[in-house]
Amino acid sequence: MKKLINGVETVLTESLDGFCAAHADIVTLGPDHKFVRRNRLKPGKVALISGGGSGHEPLHAGFVGHGMLDAACPGPVFTAPTPDQMLAAAEAVDQGAGILYIVKNYEGDVMNFEMAAEMGPGDVMTVLTNDDVAVETSDFSTGRRGVAGTLVVEKVVGAAAEAGADLAACKALGDRVNARTRSIGIALTSCTAPAVGKPTFEIGADEMEMGVGIHGEAGRRRVALMPASRIAEEMVGAILEDFGPAASGGCLLLVNGFGATPSMELYLMYREARTRLEAKGLTIARSLVGTYVTSLDMAGCSITVTLLDEEMAGHWDAPVHTAALRWGV
Amino acid sequence: MKKLINGVETVLTESLDGFCAAHADIVTLGPDHKFVRRNRLKPGKVALISGGGSGHEPLHAGFVGHGMLDAACPGPVFTAPTPDQMLAAAEAVDQGAGILYIVKNYEGDVMNFEMAAEMGPGDVMTVLTNDDVAVETSDFSTGRRGVAGTLVVEKVVGAAAEAGADLAACKALGDRVNARTRSIGIALTSCTAPAVGKPTFEIGADEMEMGVGIHGEAGRRRVALMPASRIAEEMVGAILEDFGPAASGGCLLLVNGFGATPSMELYLMYREARTRLEAKGLTIARSLVGTYVTSLDMAGCSITVTLLDEEMAGHWDAPVHTAALRWGV
Repeated sequence: MKKLINGVETVLTESLDGFCAAHADIVTLGPDHKFVRRNRLKPGKVALISGGGSGHEPLHAGFVGHGMLDAACPGPVFTAPTPDQMLAAAEAVDQGAGILYIVKNYEGDVMNFEMAAEMGPGDVMTVLTNDDVAVETSDFSTGRRGVAGTLVVEKVVGAAAEAGADLAACKALGDRVNARTRSIGIALTSCTAPAVGKPTFEIGADEMEMGVGIHGEAGRRRVALMPASRIAEEMVGAILEDFGPAASGGCLLLVNGFGATPSMELYLMYREARTRLEAKGLTIARSLVGTYVTSLDMAGCSITVTLLDEEMAGHWDAPVHTAALRWGV
Repeated sequence: MKKLINGVETVLTESLDGFCAAHADIVTLGPDHKFVRRNRLKPGKVALISGGGSGHEPLHAGFVGHGMLDAACPGPVFTAPTPDQMLAAAEAVDQGAGILYIVKNYEGDVMNFEMAAEMGPGDVMTVLTNDDVAVETSDFSTGRRGVAGTLVVEKVVGAAAEAGADLAACKALGDRVNARTRSIGIALTSCTAPAVGKPTFEIGADEMEMGVGIHGEAGRRRVALMPASRIAEEMVGAILEDFGPAASGGCLLLVNGFGATPSMELYLMYREARTRLEAKGLTIARSLVGTYVTSLDMAGCSITVTLLDEEMAGHWDAPVHTAALRWGV
């Protein structure tokens, strides 16, 4: 295992220390590394909190700040954070307007966020993301997995909360964005969790995993490495088939790298995906290409499509000031 | 070789197509893929143009836009662009206030930008970056290599040009930023150029290259893999030794990933580098952590330190709107 770390016990806390020092103008680290919170809270605003296992950076701490999340709770690598982390975060950022948890659909996360929700403070609601069309259940999830579409939910709902939407409206919007979002991923290589020290899965030099999860979980099938055009064809096809006739109008196209994929390849995949979506009559109204929802050092990418309406597009465009997404400020 | 491409002949043009489509609000692709230019030119402004071999994305096309470059010329992977590319770019963005080329110190780039400079249009000056302290000469360079510090030169001079500085002032500022900037890099793995199809260099499972170049060129020496703290100690030590007594006051600390390094490791390295710089009496006045000046899919990172003065810090903070760096707009 080749990693820039001091030891498997300290990798997470040392990385969080660095993150919060580098972005001290935006975020503050909570006690005992329980959460990362936004510096400047907005009185009367619904508090948006997410979290999950680490190893998906910049998700979620990289999305804490003006116009997006109020706090993020990082669990150990690929392991859900504990309810006391969520509770500590909620108490730190609560502004009396309620708490909205944004939770990726994995069993550990769902259970621990549910336990936290029962403890308050005040009204707590949850948006569950499950945008991955690859498989209907998997190693860590009952039902579909929440993957890169979670970023879109966090951005859109973050803007709405910033603009004064109440808790019920934020919850309804989050559910709507999730319902209009589909993703699928592929892997060329495995990831290696620091504490494990060896690749999560074995994969041949001429193979790829179609439909991979963001923890390196198995997808639909193992196939021979294909040209980018055929990979994009299958990925976009899976997304459009799942949307069915709803897939029309303007969409957001997010091409996301899993951690070790060069920018050159991501933009090439964007071209391939865009061409195919346009051929099916969709308009690419917004685009995001980069490394946002990762699986440590896995090579590969995901494609996410969100069917935008006017309200969602407006919230997407609204100012955001976080470590990993920033515009308008 | 595992890459998301259609073929080695088309990887660059297809990626550029995707890049310019995804960022159509910022950039336009020049004819025959010769350059990427900023959409909205500013009358009377000095035109800033950079370029070099591809494979270092987002450098340079990712830095084209308001407050940074006016155009970038992408050569083939790890190969200098041709003079006719620079000339075409210069003619497309020239606003009558002169052209400033920002060129990384590699023989092919220096030669081709020099040839272009002789052809005009109008006054042309050049800033040569050579911030890499690792080695005094290398495979592709006479004298020190230009690496991630080039980003700092492009940002600072870009802001000055945007604010109305004339050609001579931009040239002098660029030289000053370069003179106050030092970098060094390390690699854990090699990169693989698409047209070559195999790793640029061999490296053992327990080895790292100290002082690696951004094309995978040899550095100072091959050493056993070390903990992050010791790696940072040696990297920061090399930078500070090279600065000598000049190293004091507020600095910009850039921790840059080479393409396949997870965010978690970059922030951990940032923590290690920051701690050591502070222990030597420097203040970390500005920070940037991310994947900005890359070597395709190489795992590893570089550390760059720029000794800031008030003018440079102001230009660093000024609004920038490019694909890869954006703030204030």
